[in-house]
Amino acid sequence: MKPYSEMTADELKEELAGLKKQYHKIQALGIHLDMSRGKPSQDQLDLSMGMMDVLSSTDDLTCEDGTDCRNYGALSGISEARQLLGDMMENNPKDIIIYGNSSLNVMFDTISRAWTHGIMGNTPWCRLPEVKFLCPVPGYDRHFKITEYFGIEMIPVPMTPTGPDMDMVENLVSSDAAIKGIWCVPKYSNPQGISYSDETVRRFARLKPAANDFRIFWDNAYGVHHLYDDRQDYLIEILAECKRAGNPDLVYKFSSTSKITFPGSGIAAVATSPNNMDDFLTHLRHQTIGHDKVNQLRHVRFFGDIHGLIEHMRKHADIIRPKFEAVEEILERDLGELQVGTWTKPLGGYFIMFDSLPGCAKDIVARAKKAGLVLTNAGATWPYGKDPNDSNIRIAPTYPSLEELIRAMEIFTVCVRISSAEKLLQEKSA
Amino acid sequence: MKPYSEMTADELKEELAGLKKQYHKIQALGIHLDMSRGKPSQDQLDLSMGMMDVLSSTDDLTCEDGTDCRNYGALSGISEARQLLGDMMENNPKDIIIYGNSSLNVMFDTISRAWTHGIMGNTPWCRLPEVKFLCPVPGYDRHFKITEYFGIEMIPVPMTPTGPDMDMVENLVSSDAAIKGIWCVPKYSNPQGISYSDETVRRFARLKPAANDFRIFWDNAYGVHHLYDDRQDYLIEILAECKRAGNPDLVYKFSSTSKITFPGSGIAAVATSPNNMDDFLTHLRHQTIGHDKVNQLRHVRFFGDIHGLIEHMRKHADIIRPKFEAVEEILERDLGELQVGTWTKPLGGYFIMFDSLPGCAKDIVARAKKAGLVLTNAGATWPYGKDPNDSNIRIAPTYPSLEELIRAMEIFTVCVRISSAEKLLQEKSA
Repeated sequence: MKPYSEMTADELKEELAGLKKQYHKIQALGIHLDMSRGKPSQDQLDLSMGMMDVLSSTDDLTCEDGTDCRNYGALSGISEARQLLGDMMENNPKDIIIYGNSSLNVMFDTISRAWTHGIMGNTPWCRLPEVKFLCPVPGYDRHFKITEYFGIEMIPVPMTPTGPDMDMVENLVSSDAAIKGIWCVPKYSNPQGISYSDETVRRFARLKPAANDFRIFWDNAYGVHHLYDDRQDYLIEILAECKRAGNPDLVYKFSSTSKITFPGSGIAAVATSPNNMDDFLTHLRHQTIGHDKVNQLRHVRFFGDIHGLIEHMRKHADIIRPKFEAVEEILERDLGELQVGTWTKPLGGYFIMFDSLPGCAKDIVARAKKAGLVLTNAGATWPYGKDPNDSNIRIAPTYPSLEELIRAMEIFTVCVRISSAEKLLQEKSA
Repeated sequence: MKPYSEMTADELKEELAGLKKQYHKIQALGIHLDMSRGKPSQDQLDLSMGMMDVLSSTDDLTCEDGTDCRNYGALSGISEARQLLGDMMENNPKDIIIYGNSSLNVMFDTISRAWTHGIMGNTPWCRLPEVKFLCPVPGYDRHFKITEYFGIEMIPVPMTPTGPDMDMVENLVSSDAAIKGIWCVPKYSNPQGISYSDETVRRFARLKPAANDFRIFWDNAYGVHHLYDDRQDYLIEILAECKRAGNPDLVYKFSSTSKITFPGSGIAAVATSPNNMDDFLTHLRHQTIGHDKVNQLRHVRFFGDIHGLIEHMRKHADIIRPKFEAVEEILERDLGELQVGTWTKPLGGYFIMFDSLPGCAKDIVARAKKAGLVLTNAGATWPYGKDPNDSNIRIAPTYPSLEELIRAMEIFTVCVRISSAEKLLQEKSA
C-alpha cells in the first residue's frame, strides 16, 4: 500500500469507507481494554508472590546490626536494604536513604521541602517571585503534575534520541537563576524508552547553573528494566560523574522497586551527596520516625542480593518482551508503508512512544476510547497537558495480556489510519 | 519518713549522704537502660508475629471489590481497611483515608500542605505574616518539633485533669486569626495519660475560630490502648460532635496501628469531613499513586474485624499493666511521703507524667543518665524544649522488661531524692 500522502482524495475516501466498516465491527464487539498506565500485568505480579513467604512468625526479624525491624528507628533504612538498593542504583550504600513505598512521593516531598524550607540554606522557593523547571518533552505526566501543583513555571525542552537538547539545557540553566530543576527519566525514558547518551550525562554533570539550588531530578525508574540479555542500554552513573566534575551536590537520584516487586508495596530510595543527604534527613527527622523496615527486610530476604534481583528482572523481561515485540510488529504491519506516524523501539522500560501526523493524537485517543480502548490522554506527555503538535501518544504495553494487547493494537492502528486519512482529506479540500 | 520540706539542714545533709552512697553503688553496676521513648517491648511485638503468616504465596491478594492489592491504585485505601480503622476510630469508613506507615508523617504533611497550598481555598500559610499554634503543655515533643520546623509560633496552653484549659483555648482561638491549629492527644494523653472530659470535647466542637482555616489536630494515638477491662476512659467522638455543633470541618482526626501491630510497619489513617477529605485527596493525588495496600490487607486478614483487634489490645494490656503498676508502686513507696513530686495514674496509653519540685527536672534526668538510665529529655514536653518550671518528666514504662523497669525506677527515685534534697538545702542556705 502506498503512503496516504500520495493518495488522491478518492483513494483516501475509499480507504476511509473500508476503515470505518472495520471500526464499526470493532465497536460492536463491546471491548473494554485499558492501556492508559504503565502497570505490570498479573503474570508479573505473580513473580513476586514468594515475597509473601520469606518472613513468617517463626522468623527472626532482626537485622545484621541488631536492629529489630518491628520497632521504631533506622531513619535512613536498614543497612541490608541500603546495600541492595545501592547495588541496584550503582551507588555506595552510605549515599542511600530508603524511603516508603513510592519514589513519586519522595520527589513530591523534595519539591515541597524546597518550597517550604529551601535547599541547603537557600531561600525557600515559596519566598521567590518565580520558580521554573525544565521539562524534557515528551515526558512523564506525574512529574509535570507535581510542578504544576506548586505553581512552578514549566519550560519544555525537546527530547532528542540521545536525551534532552543539551545546548538548550545549558543555555537556560546557566542564564536564569529562577530555573531550579529539571525532570529526567534518563534510562528507558517515559514515554520514549530511550536512554541518555554518555555525552548527555557528562554535560549534565558539568552544568554551571545560575542558581545555587538548581538540582537535577534524576528519576532512574527503569534502571534494571531491560527487555533483552544481549542488547541493553548503558547509562553513566550520574552521582560519580557529578563528583568527578566538581559538582557533587547537583543531582538527586530516585529509584524504587515498584515495577520490580509490587507497585505500592515496594521500597523507594534516594541516592545523593552527603550535603544533600543532610538536607533530606533534617526534613525527614521531623516528618517521620522511620519507614517500613519489615518491608525492607522482606525485599532483602526475597532477593538475597543484587544477583537475585537481576535474575528476577529476567523473568519480567520474558513476560514483557513479547508484548513490546507484538506492538512493534503490528505498527509495522499496519502502518509501516503509510507514513502516518513514527514510533520508538525501546530495549527496556515500560513504554513505546508513537507520534502521529500533527493534529491527530487527540482524535486517535478519543476514537480508540469509543471502541473500548483506553489510552493515556493525548497531551499528557506535555506540561499542562498541552501538546503543541497534538501528535504524541504513549503506548503502555505491559498490563493487558498478549492476546488483549494484539486486539488493542489492531484497534489502535485502525484509529490512526482513520484519523490520518480524514486529516489528509481535510487538507486536500482546504 | 517525713516530707523533705520539713527536714532541717542537718537532716537533709544526712539524707543526702546516704542517697549518694546508694547512687555510687548503682553507678558501679554499669547499667544501661533506655526509657526515653514510648516504644513497645519485644513481648508486645511478638503478639503481632501472626501477621507474617496471614498472606502467603498461595493466597489471593484481591479485595472484596476486586482490587488487586499488589498493583497500583486505591488512593483512599482498600475498603476493608477503611472499615476496620473506621470501627477502631468510631467513624464511618467513607470518612476515612488510609495512609502509609506513620500518622506523624500525615500530620507533618498536613501542616506542609497548609503551608504550601492553604486549607480549603484559604491563603497558604507561607504567605501569611505569622502563623500560630496552640500547644497544650506538657505535650508530645514530636508535635511541637513539626510546628517549630515550620517557624510556627507556639503558644503553650496549660493542661488540666480534664484536658486543655478551655477558657484560654476559646479566648485565644476566637480572638486571633493567626492561630491556625491546636495539637491534641485527647485520650490517654502524652505525657499525662489523661483523657479529655465530655465538656472539653463539647467545647472543642463548639469553638468559634477567628480563622476560617483553624483546625483541631486530634491525634487519637491511644484510642484503644486501655490498661484495664473494668476501668477505661471514654472519649466523645469529635467528628460527630463537630457535625452536631454545625462545625463539620473543624477537625482532622489522626490514628494508626503503630502501637497495635509493629511501629513503622503499621497503617495510619485520617478521619475528617467530606470537604476536608477533598482537600486531603487533591494533595495526595499529586503526591502518590497509593499507599501500601498489601500491608492494609495483611492487617485486615490478621485482625478479621474490630473484635479481633480489641482482643489483641487485651494482650498488650496484660503485658503493659504490670509495668505501669510497678512504676506507681515504686514512686509511692520511695517518694510517697516526701512531697518531692507528683505523678499521674493513667488507665491507658504509653506514659506516666512526673512533676518534680520546680527547677529539678533537668538535674534528675542528667543524674539518671550518669547512672546508666536514659529518660526523655527534661523540657521535651514543652514547645522549644523549654519547661519554664523545669519540673516535668515523661516516664515511658513499656520498652524495658519488668525487671529492668523496676531497677530503672529505683534509680529514678534515688535521683529525684538527691535533686530534691540538694534543691531544698540550697534554698535553706540562700
